Amino acid sequence: MEQRISIVTLGVDDLRRARRFYEALGWEGQEVEETAFFQAGGMALVLWGREKLADDSGVADDGASWGGIALAHNVRSRAEVDAVVEQAERAGATVTRPPADTFYGGYAGCFRDPDGHVWEVAHNPGFSLDEHGNLTVPPLGPG
Amino acid sequence: MEQRISIVTLGVDDLRRARRFYEALGWEGQEVEETAFFQAGGMALVLWGREKLADDSGVADDGASWGGIALAHNVRSRAEVDAVVEQAERAGATVTRPPADTFYGGYAGCFRDPDGHVWEVAHNPGFSLDEHGNLTVPPLGPG
Repeated sequence: MEQRISIVTLGVDDLRRARRFYEALGWEGQEVEETAFFQAGGMALVLWGREKLADDSGVADDGASWGGIALAHNVRSRAEVDAVVEQAERAGATVTRPPADTFYGGYAGCFRDPDGHVWEVAHNPGFSLDEHGNLTVPPLGPG
Repeated sequence: MEQRISIVTLGVDDLRRARRFYEALGWEGQEVEETAFFQAGGMALVLWGREKLADDSGVADDGASWGGIALAHNVRSRAEVDAVVEQAERAGATVTRPPADTFYGGYAGCFRDPDGHVWEVAHNPGFSLDEHGNLTVPPLGPG
């Protein structure tokens, strides 16, 4: 199995609301057959009805709002963390952790999208971003 | 907000077990401060204690096994779908949908990792992968 993720699919209760939220963050996507696709670097973020996603994945859905996954969007400065979290809040996100210093020497805040999916917006000086926004994990020492 | 995901963090109950699972799939990572980092294309997959992730994200965790998110790993052939799903099962995954034809003209199977996180392994002829495995969403028509 190659070491990569091709698609992150977020199950949503209301595709129109979910699509509008990501569009309000400045994302541009395409919609076909009640599925919204957003190119995101070398992968895609997809919005799809949660019930369909559960059926398609062969999992039972008890309707939980959080299943132990968080997405992160790393940025290049503390000011950008503040700006993105504010933008998300204006677009309808719930801010669950206002931007603040982190234990790893960075600065980050968290929000949940209209379907409860968690995003961290982080400035981590140790993890470089190239001009396309690609992140590289640095050598982290023995482990 | 730029149109990209930097990190997908999977909350885990047993970091050693989770790390071994991804290593059994052929992934190579680094561990520091009870956190495992795997470079995955232009982003990272991170394994971290679920309780810490919930606290850090500012969310209440009711322990649900599925919160409406699926990760996908697209591959270049049907045979590769079969091979990766078999590899995952040998490594301890639960196969929730054996590989089969999909409604969109592809071929895919799904499994859950030891912490219940859902992966789809898919061959989708309409979504090209470059030599590095980067996926491009094609023009999908009006929407």
